Amino acid sequence: MPPRSPLAPDRFPVMPPVPGVRLATGICGVRYKGRTDVLLAELAPGTAAAGVLTRSLTASAPVEWCRTRLKGGRARALVVNSGNANAFTGKSGDRATAATAAAVRRLIGCANDDIYLASTGVIGEPLPAERIVEGIGAIHARLTPEPWAEAAAAIMTTDTFAKGATRTARIGGKSVIINGIAKGSGMIAPDMATMLAFVFTDAKLPAGVLRPLIRAGADRSFNSITVDSDTSTSDTLLLFATGQAAHPRIASATDPKLADFRRKLDEVLLDLALQVVRDGEGAQKMIRVDVTGAASPVAARRIGLAIANSPLVKTAIAGEDANWGRIVMAVGKAGERANRDRMRIAIGGVVIARRGERVTGYDEAPVAAHMKTRAIDIAVDVGIGRGAATVWTCDLTHGYIDINADYRS
Amino acid sequence: MPPRSPLAPDRFPVMPPVPGVRLATGICGVRYKGRTDVLLAELAPGTAAAGVLTRSLTASAPVEWCRTRLKGGRARALVVNSGNANAFTGKSGDRATAATAAAVRRLIGCANDDIYLASTGVIGEPLPAERIVEGIGAIHARLTPEPWAEAAAAIMTTDTFAKGATRTARIGGKSVIINGIAKGSGMIAPDMATMLAFVFTDAKLPAGVLRPLIRAGADRSFNSITVDSDTSTSDTLLLFATGQAAHPRIASATDPKLADFRRKLDEVLLDLALQVVRDGEGAQKMIRVDVTGAASPVAARRIGLAIANSPLVKTAIAGEDANWGRIVMAVGKAGERANRDRMRIAIGGVVIARRGERVTGYDEAPVAAHMKTRAIDIAVDVGIGRGAATVWTCDLTHGYIDINADYRS
Repeated sequence: MPPRSPLAPDRFPVMPPVPGVRLATGICGVRYKGRTDVLLAELAPGTAAAGVLTRSLTASAPVEWCRTRLKGGRARALVVNSGNANAFTGKSGDRATAATAAAVRRLIGCANDDIYLASTGVIGEPLPAERIVEGIGAIHARLTPEPWAEAAAAIMTTDTFAKGATRTARIGGKSVIINGIAKGSGMIAPDMATMLAFVFTDAKLPAGVLRPLIRAGADRSFNSITVDSDTSTSDTLLLFATGQAAHPRIASATDPKLADFRRKLDEVLLDLALQVVRDGEGAQKMIRVDVTGAASPVAARRIGLAIANSPLVKTAIAGEDANWGRIVMAVGKAGERANRDRMRIAIGGVVIARRGERVTGYDEAPVAAHMKTRAIDIAVDVGIGRGAATVWTCDLTHGYIDINADYRS
Repeated sequence: MPPRSPLAPDRFPVMPPVPGVRLATGICGVRYKGRTDVLLAELAPGTAAAGVLTRSLTASAPVEWCRTRLKGGRARALVVNSGNANAFTGKSGDRATAATAAAVRRLIGCANDDIYLASTGVIGEPLPAERIVEGIGAIHARLTPEPWAEAAAAIMTTDTFAKGATRTARIGGKSVIINGIAKGSGMIAPDMATMLAFVFTDAKLPAGVLRPLIRAGADRSFNSITVDSDTSTSDTLLLFATGQAAHPRIASATDPKLADFRRKLDEVLLDLALQVVRDGEGAQKMIRVDVTGAASPVAARRIGLAIANSPLVKTAIAGEDANWGRIVMAVGKAGERANRDRMRIAIGGVVIARRGERVTGYDEAPVAAHMKTRAIDIAVDVGIGRGAATVWTCDLTHGYIDINADYRS
C-alpha cells in the first residue's frame, strides 16, 4: 500500500446527513482481505437519478446495467464493490449483476429498475457475487444516515485517501445538502476517468432536470482531468435526489431558482475530481493547465489535455524542470489550430515565450522556484480565437511505475 | 548518459558506400561538449529527394525549410545538427536555417533549394548557427563515402546506440544500395516519431517516383511505432536517390521492376523504426501488437496504438504482469468498433480470452514465462471485420522517468 498522497487534503470533510439517504459498508472479501469492500446506499421512495457513464466500448457489466436503469431515472438503492470491476466477464458478469440486484431487491422491497450497481478493481476476472449476496443482509441491517467517510473508504482501490465533498445550496429559500464521494487514482482520463463518483442530495428534482445538470457539471470536472490518459471500463458518475426537501417545484434545469444549486453541485463535482487528481498514482505535484485563444472551448480543452497527457511534460514537471519546449510540442500534436507565431506560454504566472519565441532576457529563476512547489500552473494562449478551458493533471513519477508495474500481484 | 539499451542490436551494420554520397561529421559545440554534433552529406548533381515531415502545428524551422524544398525534389546537400531542435525560435530560427544553408551553398556551389536541413535537441532555445557556419568548412574538407557509423552517431541525442540499416536491391537486373541512418528514442509517436531518418540510394528515380514509395513505407514503419505518444516538432524522414546506378529508366512507383526495391526500402525503414523502439527511453522490453478483425486497416492501427500508448499496459509489461484486463481497457478507449462478446486476446501465442471472457481453465504459467522475455507479443482480434495492423512499442519503466525528469539540466 503506497503512502497517503502528499497532495491529499488534510482530512475528510465533515459531511452532514442527506435526508432520505442511509448508508452502510461491509467486509465481503470480494478480493481484498480485512477491509470494507461493499457499500450499500438506501434511497427514499421517490428518489430521482441521473448519471454519466464511460464511453468505453468494453464497458463493464454494471455500467451496462446502470445505462438501462438511467433511462427510467428512479432509484431506491446503490450497491458498490471494490476489488473486482466485473468487466470483460461475459455472461457470468451479467449473472453477477442480476444476483446482486436480486439480493438487494428482496431487502429493500423495490424493482430491479430502482437499483444501481458499480464495481471497480481488476478487469477480466469473474466477480464472486455470492460473497456480496451473502454479506448484504448484515450490511442492510446497519444502515444509518451518518457513515460518509466509511462509504468513501469502502469504494477505494489504489486510492491513498478517501474522497468526499459537501455543500449546502439554497433553492427558493430552502436549504438542501449536496454530498459526494468518489474513488479513482489511475486509469484516469476524460470520457470518463477510472472513477466512481456518487452524489446525493435531498433536493426535489426530477430526472429530466438532473440530467443536464450532471452532464454539464461532469464536463467541467471529471471530463477535464487526466492522470494517465487511460479510460476505464467502469467509469460511473451518479446523482441521486431524494426529494425530501420542501423547496418549490422545479421543472427545468434552467430555472433561475436553481442557480445556487447548479453552482454548488459543480463545486462538489470539481472538488471530487481534483481530489482524484491529487491521488493520481504516484502524484507529487498538481498541475493546472489554462488554455486560452483557441478556436473554441472544445479545441481549448483538447489542447489542454494534449499538454496534460504528455508523458514528456509530466516527467519534466516531476523533475522540477521548466521545460516549456515540451509544452510547445504538446500544443503542436493536439491537432487543433494554433498560431505558432502568436503563441504565449507562462509558467507560474511568468511569461516565458510570446509571439512564438522566448522573451528577451528571460529569467528562469522565478520559474525554477515555482517548479519546486506542489501546485504547478501552466498557461498557454494559442493566438487563434476566444476558446478557453482549464484541465488538471498530476506529474508522472517513479511512484506511478511502482504502483502499476505491480498492481495485480 | 544512460547505458546502452538492453534491446540494442549487437553492432552497427557494415554499410557500403552509396555512389554519389559523401559524408563527414564534426564537433561544432552546438550544445554538447566534446562529441560530434553536425553531419554534412554531399549528394551528386541530379539527386532526387522525397520525404515525410511532422504534422505538428508547431513544427521547427528546418522542418518548414524542408517542406518548401521537397516541392522541387532536387538535392545536393543535407546538414543535420544535434543538441538544439531550432523549434519555437521565431524569426531567429529562420535566420539560423538561412545562415546554415548559405554556408553550405558556398561550399557545394548549389542553390538554396538543393539543401536540406534537420535539427534535433532542445526546443525553444535559439540555435547558435554561427558555430555550424564556422565549423562546416572543415567538415566539408573531410567528405568521404565511408563514415556511415560516424554519421549515425553525430545525429544522436538521448539515443544509447547509433542506428543504421542497409540492403541491396535489384532494379532491372542492376544492383543498387539502400543505406539508412536514424535517431530517436523519446517523443516517439506516429505522425511521426521524434525522429530523424535519412535514406540514401544510388537508384535513378525521380522525385515523383520516390514520393509514393516513402509515404507507403513510412506508414508501415515509422508511423506504426510509438514510445510515449508524444509527437515531435522536428520529425523528418528524407529519401535521397543519387541516380548513379545504371538500371533502366523507371517512370512510375508501380513499375513491376521496382518490386524488389520497394521491398528492400520498406525493410530498411522498418529496421530503422524498430531500432528506434529498441532505444525507447528506458525500454527493457520490445512489444509487438497485432490487431486483427477490425473494421479497416486504419481502425486496426488505431486500436493497436491505443494499446501501445497505454501507460497502464506498458507499466504492466514492465512489471512482467500479464494484466490482459488493461488490454481490454485500451481496446475500449480506442474509439474504434469492437465486439466485446467476440473479442479474442492472446499473449505470447497463448489465448487468454475469447468470446468476451477468460477461457475456461486458463493457465497463466506459460504466459507468465513469456512476460519474462525481452520480446512481448500481444494479439487482439476485435471480432468486427478483416482490418489488420501491427504496431510496436516498448515498456514504460523507471528508466523513462529518470531520463525525462532530468534531460535539459
